[in-house]
Amino acid sequence: MQEWSLQQKAAGRKLGLVPTMGYLHQGHLALVRAARRGCDVVVVSIFVNPLQFGAGEDLDQYPRNIEGDCRLLEEEKVDAVFAPSAGEMYPRGYGTFVEVQGTIVEKLCGRSRPGHFRGVTTVVSKLFHACCPDIAYFGQKDAQQAMIIEKMVKELNFPLRIERVPTVREADGLAMSSRNVYLTAEQRQRAVILNQSLGEAKERIKAGERDVLVIRSGIVKRIEECPGAEIDYVEVVNGYDLSDLEIISERVLIALAVRFGNTRLIDNVLVEV
Amino acid sequence: MQEWSLQQKAAGRKLGLVPTMGYLHQGHLALVRAARRGCDVVVVSIFVNPLQFGAGEDLDQYPRNIEGDCRLLEEEKVDAVFAPSAGEMYPRGYGTFVEVQGTIVEKLCGRSRPGHFRGVTTVVSKLFHACCPDIAYFGQKDAQQAMIIEKMVKELNFPLRIERVPTVREADGLAMSSRNVYLTAEQRQRAVILNQSLGEAKERIKAGERDVLVIRSGIVKRIEECPGAEIDYVEVVNGYDLSDLEIISERVLIALAVRFGNTRLIDNVLVEV
Repeated sequence: MQEWSLQQKAAGRKLGLVPTMGYLHQGHLALVRAARRGCDVVVVSIFVNPLQFGAGEDLDQYPRNIEGDCRLLEEEKVDAVFAPSAGEMYPRGYGTFVEVQGTIVEKLCGRSRPGHFRGVTTVVSKLFHACCPDIAYFGQKDAQQAMIIEKMVKELNFPLRIERVPTVREADGLAMSSRNVYLTAEQRQRAVILNQSLGEAKERIKAGERDVLVIRSGIVKRIEECPGAEIDYVEVVNGYDLSDLEIISERVLIALAVRFGNTRLIDNVLVEV
Repeated sequence: MQEWSLQQKAAGRKLGLVPTMGYLHQGHLALVRAARRGCDVVVVSIFVNPLQFGAGEDLDQYPRNIEGDCRLLEEEKVDAVFAPSAGEMYPRGYGTFVEVQGTIVEKLCGRSRPGHFRGVTTVVSKLFHACCPDIAYFGQKDAQQAMIIEKMVKELNFPLRIERVPTVREADGLAMSSRNVYLTAEQRQRAVILNQSLGEAKERIKAGERDVLVIRSGIVKRIEECPGAEIDYVEVVNGYDLSDLEIISERVLIALAVRFGNTRLIDNVLVEV
């Protein structure tokens, strides 16, 4: 992979990387299309990274469809797919890790999934070195992940930049996710409450509400009314560094994680005031 | 720095990096000459990295002479010197770290200097990204450091390779070190015991001795006889991964750290059997 990437760079081509865990949907394809527009050659990596799954999480059940993924990527005229095995990425005796510390990794998903972002920053560092992109594309749906990777890129001086791509949604507003396939038909219908409650919160802020507790409790109430929905977190935080807020100002991130049965879904909205 | 490096790479030039903490001596210049022979352009970084110094260590007293260093590097026809400030490398709120874990960082200097190698791997990652070398040069005098960086490069898939350069010694055998300047005239004379005891150990192995305890206690005895020398560690370990040995075989690393007053010196020898 690296040899090919370095040849492309040596030929003066701008390289775009879209790191994914596969089972591709329209959200991934929006990243691929952004890369196709912005770069000369596009690499998509497909790797379900064991290091970012905790004990009892869904590593083993995580949906996979490498042949289907490759067909979609061929239609998008992707130049290369990088799909290493876990044994290639983490051979016996593996022991090097990249870790971002501080508030940015302790809040939201960092609280519910200890070690998750250390797994993400480690694998993304490896993918960056293997593929040598000029631009790497990440979805706004994983807002915290994108922020942490941006911090890592800046602080470790990676010679590349990150481009964030807006969340792609189903017709009823549910954010696209490979994990949506886990939902029963009933759960799938009910899951629209995530985007609905976020949209309502955004409207309230646009209408003048500035109290973080009011906004947060409005979302919590709406989700608690939804049968089968169990809140992991609902947070209204500074949209630059995830620090705590009391009064909404500048850029605010409203982010939530909600379980339906064993399926944990996340969504978020950035609001500028 | 990165812009210049990427321009060099885009022009098809092979880039060599020699990371240093400055106060350059013949050991550093041997690295620079290896880079000059092996690469089209040579970058030397000079940065006394606060992150690799522990509390109570010699960060504040560490000798500096940036003008003298630049004169030496000009004579060696180095193409660029990268000398960032601590504030540029670790701005307020800095929080990204690269860490190698396992035996390789727990033994030898890793035991005496907790956190030291995390500081080294973090700064070296930053320097690699800032300077984008094809080859980076490290001295065999810091054998454990070179091994840890080789492991990091391999495991994080950095697109470069490491070249180790043999230790350069004074006429009486003392390994060149910026810290030798701390020694009094008397300590300086006595410090030859490090290389002498290592040389004797190597001779005993070449003569057939294979018992790690015998080799180790021979070195310890010689150093303990030397007035003012206080042993930090003397270790005889596997030369590939620093794991423990009872019987010497294949490649063995004999490494030691000894204090003369407040000055801590290290030295080592690799023996193949």
